[in-house]
Amino acid sequence: MHTKSFAENPMFAARQTIEQVEEGHRLAPKFDHDGLISCITTDHASGEVLMLGYMNAEALQKTIETGEAHYWSRSRQMLWHKGATSGLVQKIVEMRVDDDQDAIWIRVNVAGSGASCHVGYRSCFYRRVPVATELSQGSRLIFTEDHKTFDPKEVYGDAENPTIL
Amino acid sequence: MHTKSFAENPMFAARQTIEQVEEGHRLAPKFDHDGLISCITTDHASGEVLMLGYMNAEALQKTIETGEAHYWSRSRQMLWHKGATSGLVQKIVEMRVDDDQDAIWIRVNVAGSGASCHVGYRSCFYRRVPVATELSQGSRLIFTEDHKTFDPKEVYGDAENPTIL
Repeated sequence: MHTKSFAENPMFAARQTIEQVEEGHRLAPKFDHDGLISCITTDHASGEVLMLGYMNAEALQKTIETGEAHYWSRSRQMLWHKGATSGLVQKIVEMRVDDDQDAIWIRVNVAGSGASCHVGYRSCFYRRVPVATELSQGSRLIFTEDHKTFDPKEVYGDAENPTIL
Repeated sequence: MHTKSFAENPMFAARQTIEQVEEGHRLAPKFDHDGLISCITTDHASGEVLMLGYMNAEALQKTIETGEAHYWSRSRQMLWHKGATSGLVQKIVEMRVDDDQDAIWIRVNVAGSGASCHVGYRSCFYRRVPVATELSQGSRLIFTEDHKTFDPKEVYGDAENPTIL
């Protein structure tokens, strides 16, 4: 396992009852069978969803302690201080946890150009999917950002692309 | 398996190259080993994150075709037309897909009281987690909604609580 169980981490409470998890005042995160919890990251200023990341117990703890987003990189299988390579550090403005405590939401300010996506766009969600009546115009994805905020080759060089087919 | 593979579903393209997945105009979703893709749901008006749900291929297809959010309920192991029980249907204003196409973001208008959380709150993310300098005030979670939008007992009756410990 690449993560400590919550029981070993004094920052997190054990999950004992549904009422405690849903209505309580202690953080009692549910990590999945890979030891990860999902994290939705939105831009504090625009409200835009920037990315969906994953945190193990250590990444969640470091994010809480430092106020800067840390994730678990599933492609590189390592702790990932977002912005360590690109400079695009995400400062936490607010952190939330959901009802059953299996998801985190962070609202962040992004340093530098404000981008969060390794492809070079501001948000990872740079393509719109037509739905329902919109389908009469076709099902092609529509790009919502007309240019890249940075050049991935310049920032990441020859680092392996994290996208897994 | 509770889902058809993308190959059987003409709505979805096969995932062939990183460039196609990241820069292409075809929807080529990546379902995980349980056949699911994560879906971030935000309120179109307020921008607030309402919930993080999961869709199998059928749920994603039905969401695209109908313009109303369908999920895969992991606790009940069934297709879930959100609002079928509570009346709190989520109408899609916009759907996005992320760079590597393993996450969906939908911006929705919620019918009725506008709530999306089975506990009775507007958002599932009704508790704030103190981080960094905020920790000097203590680590207790802070409730961000001062009342429930609906009474879960009234709406769901004796249905089993979906939270899993």
